[in-house]
Order: sequence, then structure tokens, then C-alpha cells
Amino acid sequence: MQRYFLSTPITTTVGQTFTITGETVKHWVKVMRAQPGDTAEFVTTTHQVVLADLVKSDGRTATATITAVTTPHVELPLPVTIACGLSKGDKPDQIVQRGTELGASAFVFFDSQWAVAKWAVNKQARKLTRLAKIAQGAAEQSHRTMIPSVSYATNLTQVLTHVPYDTGVVAWEESAKQGESSQLVQTLKTMTPPQRLLAIFGPEGGLAPQEVAALQAAGMTAVGLGPRIMRAETAPLYLLSSVSFWCELV
Amino acid sequence: MQRYFLSTPITTTVGQTFTITGETVKHWVKVMRAQPGDTAEFVTTTHQVVLADLVKSDGRTATATITAVTTPHVELPLPVTIACGLSKGDKPDQIVQRGTELGASAFVFFDSQWAVAKWAVNKQARKLTRLAKIAQGAAEQSHRTMIPSVSYATNLTQVLTHVPYDTGVVAWEESAKQGESSQLVQTLKTMTPPQRLLAIFGPEGGLAPQEVAALQAAGMTAVGLGPRIMRAETAPLYLLSSVSFWCELV
Repeated sequence: MQRYFLSTPITTTVGQTFTITGETVKHWVKVMRAQPGDTAEFVTTTHQVVLADLVKSDGRTATATITAVTTPHVELPLPVTIACGLSKGDKPDQIVQRGTELGASAFVFFDSQWAVAKWAVNKQARKLTRLAKIAQGAAEQSHRTMIPSVSYATNLTQVLTHVPYDTGVVAWEESAKQGESSQLVQTLKTMTPPQRLLAIFGPEGGLAPQEVAALQAAGMTAVGLGPRIMRAETAPLYLLSSVSFWCELV
Repeated sequence: MQRYFLSTPITTTVGQTFTITGETVKHWVKVMRAQPGDTAEFVTTTHQVVLADLVKSDGRTATATITAVTTPHVELPLPVTIACGLSKGDKPDQIVQRGTELGASAFVFFDSQWAVAKWAVNKQARKLTRLAKIAQGAAEQSHRTMIPSVSYATNLTQVLTHVPYDTGVVAWEESAKQGESSQLVQTLKTMTPPQRLLAIFGPEGGLAPQEVAALQAAGMTAVGLGPRIMRAETAPLYLLSSVSFWCELV
């Protein structure tokens, strides 16, 4: 069934009617050719999911009646912000698309010392709009109840000052396990929902040692992600899968 | 440093000289312009890693001298075969590339009831050759000590008869956690290295319920991978990350 995110609050009571506008009408009524009586899922601004039947549409707005209200638990208990150095080509697209499927709450792309890719000032807004659309599409497809935000930071300092978080980690080769389990596991063990995790990843070329040292000085923990070397766009997927496995399956 | 896989056995003793041929010479000497005295890493057929200096090359063959021998532990303690329904476009490429980075031992692509993509008989060999090259490149980049195999099966029965495994799981929506932890965790808890895991995933359209029932009748466990819906090419990455997290970090 189609799923859409609503951008304005509605009253979530069965039998209640609400109005749909914009891209959602275009997609549901024009592209999907919904007819009166057809049903879709709508995620409210308060992360509830309502089933609603189309009542009528003039092609620009539509009216729908709520037939059921649910509050599904599909978001990671520990909200995760993925902060990545700028990487080339479609790597940011892939990080946002797959990272959204895997439950990320927010993405921040930051410029760093060894980043080869640069986002020209006059292109940043367009890139962020594009990535926000990818996040929305992936959130609809993976049946999330929130759309992850996507933003840009000029450097790591700005990431640390602008992102709200309780615990921070930076992906970094770990020389050895500290004691019985890895730093990532030890860090996750200290967290309780709904504490927020900020996870920082380098670009293709990695972070400079001074950048990692500055992050550690700011209280971030350097965590290894297993003994294999992963590309810039794969490491965030490993982390998100691990957080899900730890919080939702173990 | 460049890493290459050797296809013939060598004596792994420091000071020993060995001969390199084929694509490796082409890449190391011609593309990378290695000069006598330059060093590269070579993975032997017995999964050891040797450092070796170039002695001389005529462009078709090269001689190198071993300067160090190591036996790194970079392979998953529980070897995992990823079996996927045929999916469209570059999805198999992505599964093999990222799955190799995440430690898979083997990939099998199989035709299934609801698969939209089909591999014509006269194109199967070419597709497998292409995927094997992707696996080799990813294995070199991620510093694996083995190249995952890639094969094709005409149906799920053939997967079960041809793939050697000790424990099997099929990715499937789980109605609820059974007791305190998920089926995936319970399954991993029963395994001890070097037992082999076979993990089966549907194509974009999913597996048919009869296919899942047949797999369960054959002893496979249906396992959920968290509450979000993942695309066909993302689910195997979640599973591999989880196995790594469980075996290598926890």
C-alpha cells in the first residue's frame, strides 16, 4: 500500500476527514490513479500512521476519511545521526537511501581535511534538496514514521556544535579490543533509550589523525567496525545495522 | 599498498622468490608502474599474506622476493553464504561488492517464483564472470584473505543441495520476538566457529509463502531483520553486519 508523509497536523480519529495537498495528491491521484474508496497510509506529523480512504479529489487537493489509527514502533530506540565526510559521485545518495532504510534519524555531510569532493557554496542547497527527496522516498518505502533530516557542515567543529547528541563515536581502526568486547559494544551498553548517538565517518580518504584526536578530545570514542576495510559508503550501514541488531534483536 | 591474490601456491618463507603472471603483472607493473624494490601484498592460496619486493619484470611475468609473512584474521569466524533471488539492474553487483566488504564467503543467485529478473541461459556465464571480478576487486580493496565465490542456481532446491552449510536462515518478516531475543540472535547463539551459515533472501518481490514453507520444512529458520522494510539489496548487508557485530565485536 502507498505510504505518504503529511506535512501539516491532523486530528487522528477514525471517521475524521482531512485534506491532502501538493505532491501527495499528484502522486496518489494522478500517478497512482486512486479512485474514491481507495486506501493509502499517511504518517502524521506526530509519527502516527492512519489508514484513509479517498473521498474526492479535483486533482489539486483531495479529501480522505480515516479508517484506522496505529502507532507502530519502527524507529531505532537509540536515534542515530550519521555524519560523513564529503564523498564523491553518488556515494552521499547511497548513504542517505540505505541509511534511511536502516533507521538513521539524521544525516550530516561535512567538509574535512582529506576530502577530495567539495560542495560549492552555490550548489549546497540543491544537493541538500536532492538528498532530502531521496530520504523521503526511502522513508516511505521502508515504512518509517519519520523522514531523516539532511544537512551540511563546513567542518567537524560545526558538526559537534549543531548536532544534538548524548554519546558520540568516530569510526576508526581499533588497535585491539579493550577487554572482552569492542569499544562499539561497550559504548552501546552505556546508552539507554531514547539517548541519541552521533556517529562520525571519514570521506574516502579517511579523517586526518588531528581530526580524530580533536573528536576524542571533545569526548567522542574511536570505535572499530570489525577487521575488514570498508568503503566510505559501507561503514555507516554496518554501524546502523549493528545498532538495530543490538537494540531491536538481541 | 596494493594487494593481489595469487592463483598458484608459493613457498611462504622470507627471502624466497616467486613468479607473478597474468593480470597481476599487468596491473602492478604496467598500470601502477612498480619499479624494482617497490612492495606489494600478495594473498597466497592458503590465505596467508606476504609482503614482497619487485625484483624484475619483462612486462609479462615478474619476480618478487618475500620480505614478510603474516596470517591476518580478517575472515568472519562463521562463514556466511548469501543466497539471493534474482534482482534487477545492478542490484546483484551491489550485493556482491558490499557483501564482500562485509565478509561474505560465497554468493548464490537463484531463480524463484516471484522474481521479475531472469538470467537467460546464454548470459549466465558472462554474468557470473562479471560478478566474480567485482568480488575479486572488493576482496582486494577490503583486505580479505579469500575471494568469495559467485554461482547461479535454477531454484531454491538446487541452492539447498549445492551449498554446504551447517545452519540455515531465511529472511522473513517475524510476527513477534520469540521470548527474549529474536530468532536471528537465537540462531547465532547455537553456532560455534567454524560452522557455516546459509542465509536466503528473496528478490524484490519477495519469496512466495510456499517457498518459505519449503525452506522451513528443510530445516531453515525464518528470521526477522528488525521492524523496517529493507530492499532486496540492503537486507543481506544487515545480516552480514549483524554476524560480524555478534562474532567479532560482542
